[in-house]
Amino acid sequence: MSETPASATPYELFYWPGLQGRGELVRLAFEDAGQPYEDVCRDPAKGAPALLALLAKNPHDALRPLAPPILRHGSVLLAQTANILFYLAPKLDLAPEGEAARLAALQLQLTLTDFIAEAHDTHHPIGTSLYYEDQKPEALRRTRAFLDHRLPKFLRYFESVIAENASPAAPLTLLGRHTYVDLSLFQVVSGLRHAFPKAMQAFEPEILSVAGLVARVEARPNIAAYLASPRRLPWNLHGIFRAYPELDLEPHFDRGRAP
Amino acid sequence: MSETPASATPYELFYWPGLQGRGELVRLAFEDAGQPYEDVCRDPAKGAPALLALLAKNPHDALRPLAPPILRHGSVLLAQTANILFYLAPKLDLAPEGEAARLAALQLQLTLTDFIAEAHDTHHPIGTSLYYEDQKPEALRRTRAFLDHRLPKFLRYFESVIAENASPAAPLTLLGRHTYVDLSLFQVVSGLRHAFPKAMQAFEPEILSVAGLVARVEARPNIAAYLASPRRLPWNLHGIFRAYPELDLEPHFDRGRAP
Repeated sequence: MSETPASATPYELFYWPGLQGRGELVRLAFEDAGQPYEDVCRDPAKGAPALLALLAKNPHDALRPLAPPILRHGSVLLAQTANILFYLAPKLDLAPEGEAARLAALQLQLTLTDFIAEAHDTHHPIGTSLYYEDQKPEALRRTRAFLDHRLPKFLRYFESVIAENASPAAPLTLLGRHTYVDLSLFQVVSGLRHAFPKAMQAFEPEILSVAGLVARVEARPNIAAYLASPRRLPWNLHGIFRAYPELDLEPHFDRGRAP
Repeated sequence: MSETPASATPYELFYWPGLQGRGELVRLAFEDAGQPYEDVCRDPAKGAPALLALLAKNPHDALRPLAPPILRHGSVLLAQTANILFYLAPKLDLAPEGEAARLAALQLQLTLTDFIAEAHDTHHPIGTSLYYEDQKPEALRRTRAFLDHRLPKFLRYFESVIAENASPAAPLTLLGRHTYVDLSLFQVVSGLRHAFPKAMQAFEPEILSVAGLVARVEARPNIAAYLASPRRLPWNLHGIFRAYPELDLEPHFDRGRAP
């Protein structure tokens, strides 16, 4: 499935240096596939200005991006994480076969996009133009609603998708084979465990397939090597998943019907 | 570009009855293309239960959806608005030509997805599990940040995309030809004008190309006929764009650098 002519063209990822963020979903795909890529803004000689230059004026005859992550691959310039992964996955042998399955993967990835945005807004419910410290009471309320209602809804959904789609030949997968969406789910669950250990610990017994998928991804040799390398940035208070002790609430899970 | 064999298969849209919501982006594509479709849940004999049945247990051998809108087209069952439109657009002659341009359209549509989610959260900053009435002070703060910072950022972005991509043969387009993304931008701008007339009136002089695109879409015969028909649901207090007078704030636009 890999496309030989394209593989000679370097892959350049532009993302804010110093945090995992949404860029991490793209990094995990490259790392899992063993595909070399340039993490441009982490080169101290380039840094964030390389990204800002792309945002200020599109240097290519391509669509202007609004925000990172941005992928440059020869004359291709793409933004929006799910869009980047939709383009990359067949080249990295991380897409399912056929158009219908590729759309199913996109659907799941967009559901993860929604989940990530909601996880982010637990610490920024009023807006990204304000510091967390300027929206702490609102963050506490939003986190309460997120942990009680949204986290169970999304995680139960992914649990059911694994149960319905994993195949005997590829157990613990979302789509019956290993794809980029599994890598993204690994990242989201890892982030949730970091940010909300109390809620996640209480919820783990309900999502054994999700936990199994995450363990499977973590054990893949290229991913294990990546996670142990300095290329994997540590969690911190700049990314999507932040460990604020005051937001690590005891959950009262919504026991309504499954999604 | 239309695919004759598929056109015999009925298109069925499943969305909450009684509101425009994200389902409207799919309706606009069908209506603009003159493509008949069944708006399943608006049939009183079917209603929301038809949608709930799809969510409760996937009746097809397809990926389970988490939330509407959902499109059924023969054996194809798709969720996530941008995913549905990515699938539909070539069949309705609403996609640009070629893979690179289709990804550019997806990138823009996903940027609109983000914009829509942020517009929605102005009245639901704490969570969808609570009524608006239970989060009014937070909604006021979030609306302030949205109108001052996010609304100008997104609208200036789309203004610049039109300036950079519209062609003499297709002026007032996002991608150099009329596409489904233009229809979605029309819907978003119309919704913002409904929800935030003060901010939008003040901002209109900065986004003349966006306003021109919206007027162009509104004047397309099929769209004009649709908007005048009973199929077009009125704005109300259940959708994404809601006219709460207390959230119609005088804007203090961020005058920072363009995106």
